[in-house]
Amino acid sequence: MDCRNRQRQLMPAIDKRRLDAMLVTHLPNIRYLCGFTGSAGVLLITDGKSTFFTDGRYREQAGAEVQAAKVVVPKGAILDAAARSVAELKIRNLGLESEHMSLAAEAKLARMLRPQTRLRPTSGVVEAQRMIKDSAEIEHLRAAVRLGSSLFDHAVAAIRPGVSELSVAAELEYAARKAGAEGMSFETIVAAGARSALPHGLATAQPIPRRGFVVLDFGVILGGYCSDMSRTVRVGAPSAEARRLYQAVREAQQAALDAVRPGRAVGEVDGAARSCLRRAGLAKFFTHSTGHGVGLEIHEPPRIARGQPELLRPGMVITIEPGVYVPGSGGVRIEDMAVVTESSCEVLTPTTKELLVV
Amino acid sequence: MDCRNRQRQLMPAIDKRRLDAMLVTHLPNIRYLCGFTGSAGVLLITDGKSTFFTDGRYREQAGAEVQAAKVVVPKGAILDAAARSVAELKIRNLGLESEHMSLAAEAKLARMLRPQTRLRPTSGVVEAQRMIKDSAEIEHLRAAVRLGSSLFDHAVAAIRPGVSELSVAAELEYAARKAGAEGMSFETIVAAGARSALPHGLATAQPIPRRGFVVLDFGVILGGYCSDMSRTVRVGAPSAEARRLYQAVREAQQAALDAVRPGRAVGEVDGAARSCLRRAGLAKFFTHSTGHGVGLEIHEPPRIARGQPELLRPGMVITIEPGVYVPGSGGVRIEDMAVVTESSCEVLTPTTKELLVV
Repeated sequence: MDCRNRQRQLMPAIDKRRLDAMLVTHLPNIRYLCGFTGSAGVLLITDGKSTFFTDGRYREQAGAEVQAAKVVVPKGAILDAAARSVAELKIRNLGLESEHMSLAAEAKLARMLRPQTRLRPTSGVVEAQRMIKDSAEIEHLRAAVRLGSSLFDHAVAAIRPGVSELSVAAELEYAARKAGAEGMSFETIVAAGARSALPHGLATAQPIPRRGFVVLDFGVILGGYCSDMSRTVRVGAPSAEARRLYQAVREAQQAALDAVRPGRAVGEVDGAARSCLRRAGLAKFFTHSTGHGVGLEIHEPPRIARGQPELLRPGMVITIEPGVYVPGSGGVRIEDMAVVTESSCEVLTPTTKELLVV
Repeated sequence: MDCRNRQRQLMPAIDKRRLDAMLVTHLPNIRYLCGFTGSAGVLLITDGKSTFFTDGRYREQAGAEVQAAKVVVPKGAILDAAARSVAELKIRNLGLESEHMSLAAEAKLARMLRPQTRLRPTSGVVEAQRMIKDSAEIEHLRAAVRLGSSLFDHAVAAIRPGVSELSVAAELEYAARKAGAEGMSFETIVAAGARSALPHGLATAQPIPRRGFVVLDFGVILGGYCSDMSRTVRVGAPSAEARRLYQAVREAQQAALDAVRPGRAVGEVDGAARSCLRRAGLAKFFTHSTGHGVGLEIHEPPRIARGQPELLRPGMVITIEPGVYVPGSGGVRIEDMAVVTESSCEVLTPTTKELLVV
């Protein structure tokens, strides 16, 4: 991780907005720019030298982790200390992360800093840079995906009629922890039978029925980076209609992957999945978007959705996850992670997409 | 859960601030006031009728869960729909949750609503009411504490020299899931040997040494409510000094529990623990506050810390968790949850506080 270089890369975006400094308050942005992994801190980025403020609990940890910034552990509140530093440095135009600063925090800064300092809301400055993963990040993501995929077999082994969805989630998460995951990247989805028609079906105490789909959607955090994958398995022999549903989603997912290439708008990738499902008469059951960026956060730009104009660029890491959900009956979702290459994309998720029947 | 009554109880606080309505954006506050458990929504509270806005993913769930509010699932963004509703209702003074609204969200509301509507930042309005738990909440908390405590034996069974801290966390979390927990209420702390001197020692791959303390601090979420407990066990026979350290923390924890009664300032409860450790010559190693409120969130008001003036009231549910941390050597923390009663408090955590040697 070359934090100095990441901060240097950020400077043109700061200059372009005519800011003298930027107060970074979003923890994933802080981690990206200086390496700190704790839960409390703010990073003041100025040209050439940056300062990281945290509290007493994190003194040792910040000393060990933080790169390319001086560490300050003030007696009082972190934000007050950062404001005092802004005042001392006579910063005229201070960029704030408008999606990641509360009204209460801004009011406090305003009381301490106005009128000498102008507080200037910005949007997605660091996130825009984070969209393109550097090689160290791609290695972290590969490792997280590998660990995540290794859990699928544990989950499948646990699936049988009568076992609760929660039990399947428990086995999967236990295996994740044993394998060294820092945690799950979101609440594990295990949605069986009619519940598989809920795109967001968190595992419940409901037992798995004797026949039907089971949608598994899960991810781990490893080295701070998130994995995300979905597979749908079948309990009991599938009907012809169930096979057709599965096959249609599988083809739509492949069509979207095939559509990924640098310079193409993400909306076209969404369109590729949607067209494929439209031909199968299933488009109306595809009720969410096709995918999203993933990295230090489970949901990052770009949002791969209908009409979105963002252009794909090499180094983006995205999910491709179309699904169909037939209310009261069942649903199927298949999801891989992929990194955009110079010519197309490389699928990171190694798990088979054949329909598994258990 | 009587959401209508909770909203009714809130009205005096809204009136007192001369607001015509309140836009609730903090998810735990939303859950408390209307029962919605999902991850996206805003609640517009007006006298007599409230409206809850969410997105398409949560249509079914909101229909099933939301009480005492009309559910709206707009085509576009949730916040835009809420703003349109504020405009239609000709609301003049709209309260915002200043700790739980971003600058970006407020800017959007301002563009859509000014000058007809004045946006008025508020602080902790719903949180103040949530500090006093109603009987349904106390039952949820009792159940969460019971489940949490039942995990302690699983963790102790896993502790032995050479086993990684992560493995202990994995066993504990697996047992939690199997027992029906929705998740852990925070990242599990398993800090062994010299690492027990880190108040915030998340489980790592480090093996448990042959001798030393192991601090366990963990909690579950059940029915939306959080549990929180810490125990410290000993690996290998404790020295006289280790026993003294443990005994001092145990006495400080009991002194703080004994100090809990309605009408007393929370700072005095903190003081009781601190005085006790001062007499043992250990006060300088007690580097954090004595406790915090707990409910739908793991950290809620009141903060039981030095000099805090908030008065204890019946129905508050708090943690009491003093600790001592001797850098480079080891630490001890003991934590219970307790509910403030009419005369003193009832300790909810049933787990023994005898020093366990494994």
